[in-house]
Amino acid sequence: MTKEDVTAMILSAKKQAGLKWEEIAEKIGMSPVWTHSACMGMNAMPRDKAEALVAVMGLPQEAASVLEESPTKVWEQAVPTDPCIYRLYEIVGVYGPTIKAIINEKFGEGIMSAIDFDMKITRVENPKGDRVKLEMSGKFLAYNNW
Amino acid sequence: MTKEDVTAMILSAKKQAGLKWEEIAEKIGMSPVWTHSACMGMNAMPRDKAEALVAVMGLPQEAASVLEESPTKVWEQAVPTDPCIYRLYEIVGVYGPTIKAIINEKFGEGIMSAIDFDMKITRVENPKGDRVKLEMSGKFLAYNNW
Amino acid sequence: MTKEDVTAMILSAKKQAGLKWEEIAEKIGMSPVWTHSACMGMNAMPRDKAEALVAVMGLPQEAASVLEESPTKVWEQAVPTDPCIYRLYEIVGVYGPTIKAIINEKFGEGIMSAIDFDMKITRVENPKGDRVKLEMSGKFLAYNNW
Amino acid sequence: MTKEDVTAMILSAKKQAGLKWEEIAEKIGMSPVWTHSACMGMNAMPRDKAEALVAVMGLPQEAASVLEESPTKVWEQAVPTDPCIYRLYEIVGVYGPTIKAIINEKFGEGIMSAIDFDMKITRVENPKGDRVKLEMSGKFLAYNNW
Amino acid sequence: MTKEDVTAMILSAKKQAGLKWEEIAEKIGMSPVWTHSACMGMNAMPRDKAEALVAVMGLPQEAASVLEESPTKVWEQAVPTDPCIYRLYEIVGVYGPTIKAIINEKFGEGIMSAIDFDMKITRVENPKGDRVKLEMSGKFLAYNNW
Amino acid sequence: MTKEDVTAMILSAKKQAGLKWEEIAEKIGMSPVWTHSACMGMNAMPRDKAEALVAVMGLPQEAASVLEESPTKVWEQAVPTDPCIYRLYEIVGVYGPTIKAIINEKFGEGIMSAIDFDMKITRVENPKGDRVKLEMSGKFLAYNNW
Amino acid sequence: MTKEDVTAMILSAKKQAGLKWEEIAEKIGMSPVWTHSACMGMNAMPRDKAEALVAVMGLPQEAASVLEESPTKVWEQAVPTDPCIYRLYEIVGVYGPTIKAIINEKFGEGIMSAIDFDMKITRVENPKGDRVKLEMSGKFLAYNNW
Amino acid sequence: MTKEDVTAMILSAKKQAGLKWEEIAEKIGMSPVWTHSACMGMNAMPRDKAEALVAVMGLPQEAASVLEESPTKVWEQAVPTDPCIYRLYEIVGVYGPTIKAIINEKFGEGIMSAIDFDMKITRVENPKGDRVKLEMSGKFLAYNNW
Amino acid sequence: MTKEDVTAMILSAKKQAGLKWEEIAEKIGMSPVWTHSACMGMNAMPRDKAEALVAVMGLPQEAASVLEESPTKVWEQAVPTDPCIYRLYEIVGVYGPTIKAIINEKFGEGIMSAIDFDMKITRVENPKGDRVKLEMSGKFLAYNNW
Amino acid sequence: MTKEDVTAMILSAKKQAGLKWEEIAEKIGMSPVWTHSACMGMNAMPRDKAEALVAVMGLPQEAASVLEESPTKVWEQAVPTDPCIYRLYEIVGVYGPTIKAIINEKFGEGIMSAIDFDMKITRVENPKGDRVKLEMSGKFLAYNNW
Repeated sequence: MTKEDVTAMILSAKKQAGLKWEEIAEKIGMSPVWTHSACMGMNAMPRDKAEALVAVMGLPQEAASVLEESPTKVWEQAVPTDPCIYRLYEIVGVYGPTIKAIINEKFGEGIMSAIDFDMKITRVENPKGDRVKLEMSGKFLAYNNW
Repeated sequence: MTKEDVTAMILSAKKQAGLKWEEIAEKIGMSPVWTHSACMGMNAMPRDKAEALVAVMGLPQEAASVLEESPTKVWEQAVPTDPCIYRLYEIVGVYGPTIKAIINEKFGEGIMSAIDFDMKITRVENPKGDRVKLEMSGKFLAYNNW
Repeated sequence: MTKEDVTAMILSAKKQAGLKWEEIAEKIGMSPVWTHSACMGMNAMPRDKAEALVAVMGLPQEAASVLEESPTKVWEQAVPTDPCIYRLYEIVGVYGPTIKAIINEKFGEGIMSAIDFDMKITRVENPKGDRVKLEMSGKFLAYNNW
Repeated sequence: MTKEDVTAMILSAKKQAGLKWEEIAEKIGMSPVWTHSACMGMNAMPRDKAEALVAVMGLPQEAASVLEESPTKVWEQAVPTDPCIYRLYEIVGVYGPTIKAIINEKFGEGIMSAIDFDMKITRVENPKGDRVKLEMSGKFLAYNNW
Repeated sequence: MTKEDVTAMILSAKKQAGLKWEEIAEKIGMSPVWTHSACMGMNAMPRDKAEALVAVMGLPQEAASVLEESPTKVWEQAVPTDPCIYRLYEIVGVYGPTIKAIINEKFGEGIMSAIDFDMKITRVENPKGDRVKLEMSGKFLAYNNW
Repeated sequence: MTKEDVTAMILSAKKQAGLKWEEIAEKIGMSPVWTHSACMGMNAMPRDKAEALVAVMGLPQEAASVLEESPTKVWEQAVPTDPCIYRLYEIVGVYGPTIKAIINEKFGEGIMSAIDFDMKITRVENPKGDRVKLEMSGKFLAYNNW
Repeated sequence: MTKEDVTAMILSAKKQAGLKWEEIAEKIGMSPVWTHSACMGMNAMPRDKAEALVAVMGLPQEAASVLEESPTKVWEQAVPTDPCIYRLYEIVGVYGPTIKAIINEKFGEGIMSAIDFDMKITRVENPKGDRVKLEMSGKFLAYNNW
Repeated sequence: MTKEDVTAMILSAKKQAGLKWEEIAEKIGMSPVWTHSACMGMNAMPRDKAEALVAVMGLPQEAASVLEESPTKVWEQAVPTDPCIYRLYEIVGVYGPTIKAIINEKFGEGIMSAIDFDMKITRVENPKGDRVKLEMSGKFLAYNNW
Repeated sequence: MTKEDVTAMILSAKKQAGLKWEEIAEKIGMSPVWTHSACMGMNAMPRDKAEALVAVMGLPQEAASVLEESPTKVWEQAVPTDPCIYRLYEIVGVYGPTIKAIINEKFGEGIMSAIDFDMKITRVENPKGDRVKLEMSGKFLAYNNW
Repeated sequence: MTKEDVTAMILSAKKQAGLKWEEIAEKIGMSPVWTHSACMGMNAMPRDKAEALVAVMGLPQEAASVLEESPTKVWEQAVPTDPCIYRLYEIVGVYGPTIKAIINEKFGEGIMSAIDFDMKITRVENPKGDRVKLEMSGKFLAYNNW
């Protein structure tokens, strides 16, 4: 049983049950972003969350140990083509140097961690058209001088 | 006089004056992210902001019309190498499909605009190490069916 | 049942029935371009159109929910090799900067949306050889200054 | 004197004279799209148009023969990064196979020429937001069977 | 039944019958180059030729309609590795700009069509070693000025 | 004095004298294709031809030895963008495997040389539109079995 | 039966029989390098050698005609990753321009053929560590001037 | 003074003196391949050889220390385009896996070093056309198991 | 039975037995890094170690000869995407020229071997957060001058 | 004054003074690896170290503020060609998945930081040939689950 197999089982069970990612996330006590990512096999689940998911979705017991396994994070398109994902890539291309400059000014030499990291997506109502709000937070890591 | 020339003048004047991007931004009544991006030549400035910047930084008058010009947004590295920018690229690679799925679930078929878009960067104090907070907001654009 | 499966069913039913895309499109009350694209799995169908298509083409009921699913839009050739598609790529390469300049002159800083977008293809008779006419229309999106 | 030199002269004279591409095009009796493209060095001008442009813009006489020269059409980004141009690339990626299918259905085996080709860009007023209209027309070329 | 299936059937029948491409071509009244290309699925056959081929090679009737279908012309190696094909690529790299210059001098601004195109390959005896002769002919297409 | 310098001198002298490549080629007793290619620095000239060219075009004497030097043949675009050159690339992509198959059938295992090679370009009148004729001839090279 | 099938049969028979490539090569009267390459499907075998191999390795009779077929020589990694093969690539990168210069000095304008070509690999004893000796020999091909 | 400067001086002095690489190599007591490579800046010269070269070619004294400097070996074309160098690349592509297999059979697990390496190029007379002989020799390096 | 098959068997047996790589390595008397690499099929095992592994993990006897076979070391991502592996790539990008400079200063012209090479990974306790320690050691190989 | 200018000044002063990187590093109280990297412009120096370096190397005062500036870390070769650096890339390709597996086993889900990182290079005497020892140490960063 591979991570791909478990992802397929989750998607199928989710469709069957008519659940949203937000609802699944709430049932296992985690955020929707992390829950989706772990279900897609891009993050490993700690044991208790893997078992909770198996229970919630009615997966076979073996799935829990697969969800705990360390994934190799692979994406095949260096430049993503799906418009929704490409726009994010474009933001990094256009604003990447700006984000770097502002971080350096606020924190000194270093980066925002993509490992000690979290993200939240919300819908913000707006009379001119609702907006997607992405909030990312990552620990500042200072470069070591040695 | 090109956009590169104006960027060089701004950087030099900024160093001379000991100003931070936040301070420059405040003086022209715009956000630090947008101000930096426009000064780097990645966004065009409306006339009044271009003139305000020229006044604040003591640039030659011709610089204002250059700041107003429409830039061609080019980045040369499809995959950025600077660690601070790469981490953002990595976030798109790892979480891109997740962001797409959550947006689709919350809004229906569509994307977050990278054009009707804004961003804010803040420093969040944290006893385990301060964190970088990126807040992005883009208008939801629904796919047209015709 | 995947989007690929449904595409194969549609192509087979279309051949069997001797229908053209224009005829299928008319039967479901949509345009030929959008209909073909959604049948190829590059756009999602709203429920009523998915059900209309299932009825028109005699597809199994499950196909409707698959047609409604959000597709991940992927193309594998960064530079397309098929001559008919390559010529379109070539037009973007040759005339892209011109289209950008004219849009900026007519509308100000911004872009033509590829999301709030529609297209029509017609055959124009011409004594020197008939011509393909492509009409594209996309909402102008102005860059946000913040 | 190279094509790049002449392009720079035209841009400078245009700024000086406060002319729009539409106005320049009208003065030489050609369309704005073709005029911009030829001024950028992506198309060659027939002698009379080259001389008309030299007269209109007040360029040195040598510029006319440079405008007549055959250009080598080169673009350096296989995938364009500027958002306005990228959206066109995206349209080719998403709708390319659809355009091909519809052309084949309407005309038989063949392509739309990118050489015997013209394009027009207009602003279409719309209460929900004005729209960019691109109209392209190319001669249908049938594949030869021999 | 796909184009790949039909190609495999043709190759197998050809081997069985001990036929050369030249002989097959002659039997259907077409050139060897076009015949091979259409059998490989890189060109569509008009109905009569598809039926002639099916008769000559003893293929199942369904193969005729597959041979008529419009192919998507795809090659996977941007730079071909097989030495026989690479040498052709090398000729384009070394002599491409020369061919362009000579065509422009002889015809004016335009290109040689690869669509209204034919090719012939012959063996030319030569005491220093026989030579491969490739004769290509394509319609001149003049750039449109509009 | 580099090959690029000599190419620039030749182009300038050619424009001054109002000569065509065919005329220059005739004056030095070589073909137009080879002459253009050697003038562009993509082939080396034997001493007598280099001296003839220097005399015909009125170049400085040092240019002769530069024309004799061995060039490093470099092209920067793996996939050429200029439409006139791209069409040749497309022909290799579409018909490369066919050319290989026909050569193998006519000659046995081997290739057409791109070194012991010549090419001729002619204009063929045709009531439906004149045609470009490319005739290439290369020595057949058989694979060695050892 | 494909070339891949025959390669698999040969490898299996070779393991079973405990034969080295040198021994197989000797049994069919050819060199080890050519024998290995033809068994891998990167060269075609003349009929007598194909039949000798079939006899020596106990392959089914059909394998002989497959070994005779013309291969399409494909390698998928433009830059090989296996260290043993990469070192050869590195030698071409570092010494390629040198080999070209020395060949031009010794022979005039031209190249070493990779078609009329042979290679031999030997182990040379050396007290500081045995050495691999590669001897390649290819016919000199002079550029044609026409 | 950079390595590029010194290379240019050597080439100029070589042309002036009418020397061949073989003659220069002999004068400094090294092989032609190594001498050319070091003169091109792809290898560092030990002090005595650098000084010998400076004396032989009449270079300024500072050139000796530049020739001693460690070069960064860079080639810009992952796949070389010059036909003479490409043929070597092709040999690696076609015969790389064969060379690896024969080395493994003769020596065990390991590679041929490209560092403890030498090469010799000779002209071999042959009535069917002279041949280029490349002899490479590299120390066998066994993989470490630890 | 391929190397991939054997890797899958090892992973399954390891999970079943609840063994760590360190424990497996110790049982066959080798280091964890080498053991993991050989089990993944990236290194060949000497006979005694292959047999020891087969015994320890309860693999079928045939697996031993597969573990002894010479692997072709292939990685598909020129730039790895998994964050843990990417950081190593980043270290090579940032510090590669530094490592080269320090090696050249300490040893003279040459490189660190990646063949006569070993590596050790340890966990170093640290009150500010434990650290990963990588110790690599490779034989210095001096460039040959000949 | 750019980082490139300062690097050139340091290299020149270093050559003049006959200093090694180890000696420079010792004079400013830092490690050789970090010192070289910062002098190359790949790391920023804290003020006191920048001033110490300026004093030690006799650089103009302005150089200190340039050494303090935040660098954009760029490398142009995704796959490095210099053999000394390539071997490091090869180690990442061959052993990257192994390092990941061992880190995950020893620490849990996470990575070795390339930011909170240090490195040391030493020469280890060895009768079979001295060895290069690279010791890298990076803080373990655990993935956040949220």
